[in-house]
Amino acid sequence: MMQIGFVGLGKMGANMVRRLIERGGHEVVVWDRDPRAIAELARAGARGAESPEDLARTLAPPRVIWLMVPAGAPVDEALDALAGNTTRGDVFVDGGNSFYKDSMRRAGALAARGQHLLDAGTSGGVWGRELGYCLMIGGAPEAFAHARPVLETLAPPDGFAHVGASGAGHFCKMVHNGIEYGLMQAYAEGFALMEASPFEFDLAKVATLWNQGSVVRSWLLELAQRAFQDDPRLEKVAAWVDDTGEGRWTVQAAVEHAVPTPAIAAALFARFRSRQEQSFADRVLATLRKQFGGHATKPRA
Amino acid sequence: MMQIGFVGLGKMGANMVRRLIERGGHEVVVWDRDPRAIAELARAGARGAESPEDLARTLAPPRVIWLMVPAGAPVDEALDALAGNTTRGDVFVDGGNSFYKDSMRRAGALAARGQHLLDAGTSGGVWGRELGYCLMIGGAPEAFAHARPVLETLAPPDGFAHVGASGAGHFCKMVHNGIEYGLMQAYAEGFALMEASPFEFDLAKVATLWNQGSVVRSWLLELAQRAFQDDPRLEKVAAWVDDTGEGRWTVQAAVEHAVPTPAIAAALFARFRSRQEQSFADRVLATLRKQFGGHATKPRA
Amino acid sequence: MMQIGFVGLGKMGANMVRRLIERGGHEVVVWDRDPRAIAELARAGARGAESPEDLARTLAPPRVIWLMVPAGAPVDEALDALAGNTTRGDVFVDGGNSFYKDSMRRAGALAARGQHLLDAGTSGGVWGRELGYCLMIGGAPEAFAHARPVLETLAPPDGFAHVGASGAGHFCKMVHNGIEYGLMQAYAEGFALMEASPFEFDLAKVATLWNQGSVVRSWLLELAQRAFQDDPRLEKVAAWVDDTGEGRWTVQAAVEHAVPTPAIAAALFARFRSRQEQSFADRVLATLRKQFGGHATKPRA
Amino acid sequence: MMQIGFVGLGKMGANMVRRLIERGGHEVVVWDRDPRAIAELARAGARGAESPEDLARTLAPPRVIWLMVPAGAPVDEALDALAGNTTRGDVFVDGGNSFYKDSMRRAGALAARGQHLLDAGTSGGVWGRELGYCLMIGGAPEAFAHARPVLETLAPPDGFAHVGASGAGHFCKMVHNGIEYGLMQAYAEGFALMEASPFEFDLAKVATLWNQGSVVRSWLLELAQRAFQDDPRLEKVAAWVDDTGEGRWTVQAAVEHAVPTPAIAAALFARFRSRQEQSFADRVLATLRKQFGGHATKPRA
Repeated sequence: MMQIGFVGLGKMGANMVRRLIERGGHEVVVWDRDPRAIAELARAGARGAESPEDLARTLAPPRVIWLMVPAGAPVDEALDALAGNTTRGDVFVDGGNSFYKDSMRRAGALAARGQHLLDAGTSGGVWGRELGYCLMIGGAPEAFAHARPVLETLAPPDGFAHVGASGAGHFCKMVHNGIEYGLMQAYAEGFALMEASPFEFDLAKVATLWNQGSVVRSWLLELAQRAFQDDPRLEKVAAWVDDTGEGRWTVQAAVEHAVPTPAIAAALFARFRSRQEQSFADRVLATLRKQFGGHATKPRA
Repeated sequence: MMQIGFVGLGKMGANMVRRLIERGGHEVVVWDRDPRAIAELARAGARGAESPEDLARTLAPPRVIWLMVPAGAPVDEALDALAGNTTRGDVFVDGGNSFYKDSMRRAGALAARGQHLLDAGTSGGVWGRELGYCLMIGGAPEAFAHARPVLETLAPPDGFAHVGASGAGHFCKMVHNGIEYGLMQAYAEGFALMEASPFEFDLAKVATLWNQGSVVRSWLLELAQRAFQDDPRLEKVAAWVDDTGEGRWTVQAAVEHAVPTPAIAAALFARFRSRQEQSFADRVLATLRKQFGGHATKPRA
Repeated sequence: MMQIGFVGLGKMGANMVRRLIERGGHEVVVWDRDPRAIAELARAGARGAESPEDLARTLAPPRVIWLMVPAGAPVDEALDALAGNTTRGDVFVDGGNSFYKDSMRRAGALAARGQHLLDAGTSGGVWGRELGYCLMIGGAPEAFAHARPVLETLAPPDGFAHVGASGAGHFCKMVHNGIEYGLMQAYAEGFALMEASPFEFDLAKVATLWNQGSVVRSWLLELAQRAFQDDPRLEKVAAWVDDTGEGRWTVQAAVEHAVPTPAIAAALFARFRSRQEQSFADRVLATLRKQFGGHATKPRA
Repeated sequence: MMQIGFVGLGKMGANMVRRLIERGGHEVVVWDRDPRAIAELARAGARGAESPEDLARTLAPPRVIWLMVPAGAPVDEALDALAGNTTRGDVFVDGGNSFYKDSMRRAGALAARGQHLLDAGTSGGVWGRELGYCLMIGGAPEAFAHARPVLETLAPPDGFAHVGASGAGHFCKMVHNGIEYGLMQAYAEGFALMEASPFEFDLAKVATLWNQGSVVRSWLLELAQRAFQDDPRLEKVAAWVDDTGEGRWTVQAAVEHAVPTPAIAAALFARFRSRQEQSFADRVLATLRKQFGGHATKPRA
């Protein structure tokens, strides 16, 4: 049981706070830009702060303050807002999906003030509140040790680890998400091929079957099973797939380090393509075919 | 100047017959299922036949009969229709886009009758009538020698060659088309990236420029230049790209021979993707994201 | 408990026979070309046959005869060897990795004799003897019903299903393996990127961690965890990756059905590439670079 | 005829200086870190400077100074060395392969001093001295107008153009090189497939043939023709392919702008792969296969 500050009470953050309270009995001091998010967690047993400064002042040093805010500027803003009221030895944990080079930069800046940043790659999605969050932690070992009670509560058994120096946690999470893109793409291609075949497969049945002892069984396939059971031909959802920073960064890091990642890149490109209407590249192709072969093209509707 | 039979008077076939007459002064006996196609070429100086049998009887042995019909069953049907009235030593030329294994099979069957099949991969599209057709010929060298006057007329200077045994011509053309898919895809990706950039490029200007001394200059880029000059943002054409057998066969042959062809396969898959509406694979991805992350999806419109 | 014939006693087949005897108490009559394989299973409780004919005669009709022989000609040879001594209503099960179109052809030929073929895609590898084999069955429902006691013993709970008409089982297994290629490639790319990063990751630690609640947890990742624990830098194994028919057929079927499968194709091509020495394609690239840029190349050692 | 400064006398730079002198009769003042490079061009008619400062002082304002130095820090260093002795209205031309965002940054810094940067993507390789360099220019139109006489001499007819604001030239060249990667990869894959086929193709003959009227004819294919004529099986060169910044930046820009570039990425990854020994990713695959299937692996030699 320990005291912890928590900044950022979105869907993920709020779930994590609830888990900290319910499973660990921790004393959680929370703040968010949205007062309603604070009020809601106060009802769940958290202690609401009036401002980042108030949050910092409420905590006894050495503090552990978890940030669960969007990647990019919001992380810097949160750290800035807390800077004045925190002290040497305090530990910040960035549980969001920050770019690992940003985490390295921030850790360096905090270290100059005698403070720590743990970059905590967090996986588990909406299921994490119940099952626990898999936590990949980068940063100083002593900061990791200090935050351990919190990590133990948030993660499932053996579900957190110190994976390296500052940046390693978010790099690890970045690659985790890149792999996730590749895995999802492999399943998507396979199911699409079955759907296009003449066999009229019951895909919910196939997914369920594969989850029983086949080589491709996985948690993602359990989700696919559930999805096909709910909507056998996936008629409720549009073929529009968003992507987040980690997938892009994975490919860019692979290019930077000269590591071939064709399957992960294919997965990323499939998502880009899913969001295009009247793809320009495809229009180049159609136009060239028309030029050299007099091939039929479709006039633009 | 020689006598030649010509079966199949579609766009490509008719242009080739005209070139044979106009450029080579050959005597061309033509037949097609469509009597109007025959009549039209008769006006251009060809001699119309009333049937395949009539065509064969009209020609003096050893005959050269060029087939320009769709790949697959039509080639077998044409050969069957001509079988009874042709004799040992006759040479058939399949100038269409037949699968090379079919050409090997057919050459074997004809050889058993003392006849020859040249498989003539033909490139040049609608431009070939004026510029000549690049001809990649497989089959027996003596048959190639017999057909040489015709090949010389159809091709530009040095634009025909004997590339190997039966099947080699169509294999060579198949790979040619696979490469063509890859080249087109590379240009399409590059132009699409320029179009998506903040620089507001004039793509006709860029294509024109690149054709003057750059490493990527090519005939396809000249077509692209022409296309962008005609329709700077490619607004007249839909992002819908057909594919023909050769691209598919190239990838399948690559798989059969264990040769990695990632760029050509990417080009083929891009064409498949261009024709999908509400891609099933993308719906699998969108659904899985929703399952594990509660991520936003687009409801189907 | 039922009587069953079993032809093909390789590693997979022998394990399956043992499971049938030990878990199900079935009476298994076995045959293989290698008498030692028969003798070994006889010691485990199977009844050895002297020939395929003897095996067929030993079984009471309607027979169930499981074939676990290499894909291709061996399946046809086994069916031929058994044809004379089997009768109407008998059920053959092809548990190997046959091409689904072969299974459709064979089922048609057997149906003309009043016999059944179940095409049984079988997943589970060396772990199947203990954990059970995931079985994807195509063919006539009545044949499936007849073979059910055997399937129940071989599979884990809920680990077998009738997925469609003849061919559907092997198609389903083919796609399963294609997906498997894609999943493996995604993990391989991710671990390779981590290995190339400056963070000096302990990959066994990361794999272990990810198996606890992360989105990418799977059975394959459990194997990866085990592998990294055994050989942290994978120094015992060469970068040489075989492929089997299913991966190739998946890509070829995708091409046939115009379904984009870029990640699975990337996985297949990576395996092809892993087995090349002095790749010809790469030599083309190196040569072209030298031609146009005077770029440095490596002379061939 | 105009006066121009030239900094960077490597292979490309020296060839460009010679072309400026021989074709344009320009007065070229040259400097390089290597005095021998200066001396050699002095013999060819250039005027050698003793330092960047000397070079700047020698030129009459408004100056045109062409930089042909490696991308990255050398460009900044050259600009810094010239800053003190150049004046408002001077035009710097960066003809190297700089990253376009660097060019935008530099142009902004120079603009604050009343000076101009033209970013000049330069294509043509070692052939450029004879055939001219294709020049893609970004920057202020008035700077472009001032440098025009130089551009006219360096380029083939119509081989230079102003393609946009600062950065556009190097972006255009970056994409040009990305396309080049894709084109080369497509040819490499096609020739590799022909080489692996049973037809024993004469690839020099095929390349020569395709350059006569086929759809895939191009300058790169002319280089391939020359290469195969010189070394029919490409036995003199190793399968080791370098890459330069532009290919990587193209993929990273595509990821940044969410444009699918699967063929260009495949080309880049093929180059990465060509330089790996005992690929880690492939060892992951081999190890996993061994784990789940007991499949044969090759022990590390």
